Amino acid sequence: MSDALERIELCLADAVSRAGGAGAPPLVAAAIRHAVFPGGARIRPRLCLAVAAACGEPEPAVSEAAAAAIELLHCASLVHDDMPCFDDAPLRRGRPSVHCQFGEPVALLAGDGLIVLGFETLARGTAQAPHLLAPLLLILAGGTGMPAGIVGGQGWECEQRIDLATYQRAKTGALFAAATMAGAASAGAPSEPWRLFGERLGEAYQVADDIGDTLSTSAELGKPAGRDGVLGRPNAALQLGVPGALHRLEALVGGAIAVMPPCPNAAALRRLMLIEVQRLLPKEAVRYAA
Amino acid sequence: MSDALERIELCLADAVSRAGGAGAPPLVAAAIRHAVFPGGARIRPRLCLAVAAACGEPEPAVSEAAAAAIELLHCASLVHDDMPCFDDAPLRRGRPSVHCQFGEPVALLAGDGLIVLGFETLARGTAQAPHLLAPLLLILAGGTGMPAGIVGGQGWECEQRIDLATYQRAKTGALFAAATMAGAASAGAPSEPWRLFGERLGEAYQVADDIGDTLSTSAELGKPAGRDGVLGRPNAALQLGVPGALHRLEALVGGAIAVMPPCPNAAALRRLMLIEVQRLLPKEAVRYAA
Repeated sequence: MSDALERIELCLADAVSRAGGAGAPPLVAAAIRHAVFPGGARIRPRLCLAVAAACGEPEPAVSEAAAAAIELLHCASLVHDDMPCFDDAPLRRGRPSVHCQFGEPVALLAGDGLIVLGFETLARGTAQAPHLLAPLLLILAGGTGMPAGIVGGQGWECEQRIDLATYQRAKTGALFAAATMAGAASAGAPSEPWRLFGERLGEAYQVADDIGDTLSTSAELGKPAGRDGVLGRPNAALQLGVPGALHRLEALVGGAIAVMPPCPNAAALRRLMLIEVQRLLPKEAVRYAA
Repeated sequence: MSDALERIELCLADAVSRAGGAGAPPLVAAAIRHAVFPGGARIRPRLCLAVAAACGEPEPAVSEAAAAAIELLHCASLVHDDMPCFDDAPLRRGRPSVHCQFGEPVALLAGDGLIVLGFETLARGTAQAPHLLAPLLLILAGGTGMPAGIVGGQGWECEQRIDLATYQRAKTGALFAAATMAGAASAGAPSEPWRLFGERLGEAYQVADDIGDTLSTSAELGKPAGRDGVLGRPNAALQLGVPGALHRLEALVGGAIAVMPPCPNAAALRRLMLIEVQRLLPKEAVRYAA
């Protein structure tokens, strides 16, 4: 396990244990644990720590708390997105989704509890640097709430008419932007210059995810494959073909790297981004790329 | 409209407008507005401001933000509690509940958005007193999340075996405690001494609410009356009879006032508490009390 991943897992374990502390109703506590562990790729919190490291990271505890808070908020959105009134997804990370395992009421509460836990984790982690709490909280709220965070993006799924760019920027881009901006802010650097970098990485991630949805088996994904076609959702690999989508992915990552703000350890961050993209793609895609 | 109520409404209006800003999906934005306006009695935020005033309130903007944040978090819990997988309530404050008016997906998102908005409102309101943000955030998270806030309390409804005292303390007492503690903290006073005072007021409110559920018509309540009997939920007026419940209410308010921490304007707060209790009771109860 990489050092960054280990730091994230420890911080998440600490938060999840606190949520299950004295007086906790056992099922909601178990559902929160189920939603967070074992984790997925932890892409957003690792991105947050990578940007913090690139910016010099004078406050590791703050960066870790921001990264863990982002992952908790992301997990909350997965729990609620999977529920019957949205995707009605039976599987997540290769196991039953939270509502399938624990029922709808517990899933609803687990998601709510994870949102609160995200902000609480941020507050605890900034105890030694209290001036960083407000800017980080506002970045995370912007990436998750209304009008233009995850909730805003998901809200567009409930509308008759939808502006696709606004939808995707909010649904996926906003939390990636929050991850890069929080990484910079946690290191005391200006956060706004990191927004576009995060948004472009979010777009790239979305395309990689589309390729995965199209090429992978359900066992590889840990969730049902081919759902976008079934649900009629936009998918870059279905629209452009897999080679076209791979080309688009490459362009987006290049575009992200092109707008990366200057920072002390830029070269290391650039290298990391290129490695990450390879990790995101299903094995199957390598054949197409070759 | 009282000065305190006006300050709360202005702060809430500002927050709700921000949630419906550029890029917002119209239905979720409308659902958030529907959940917050027109309001109920705003008991919790008024309690928060009353304690802040009793403690001297050197930072009115901070107290207002804390009060509004508490109300937003309370509204979030009402939206999610009313949903079909919990109370399946058709009415709230005399109008269709959010999921009845806007559908389940929008209601789920509106609740999530309101939680994020609560914390965001707190962060914006503490800009001039950043050292107060972390303590206030932790108080609000304790009153709303896991293990022992609203989410924890609601979570006990999903368990086979339930400890009634733990359940009620979390479901109702925790946010009342958060309101009194946040009032004190926003005035720079120690918050912990105000916990028991808030918990006892929360118990008193629960008993008053039980009396209302038993004596009032649905039109008076703005939600279905007699629900506790139908759903088999514990209700002090059903268990003790209305006169017994009124006696218990009086004892609880007396018990709260007895543990009120010393503060500059204690006498005014005591008077306000006694007036508030009368407001909470349905008109019908006056006959029993006479």
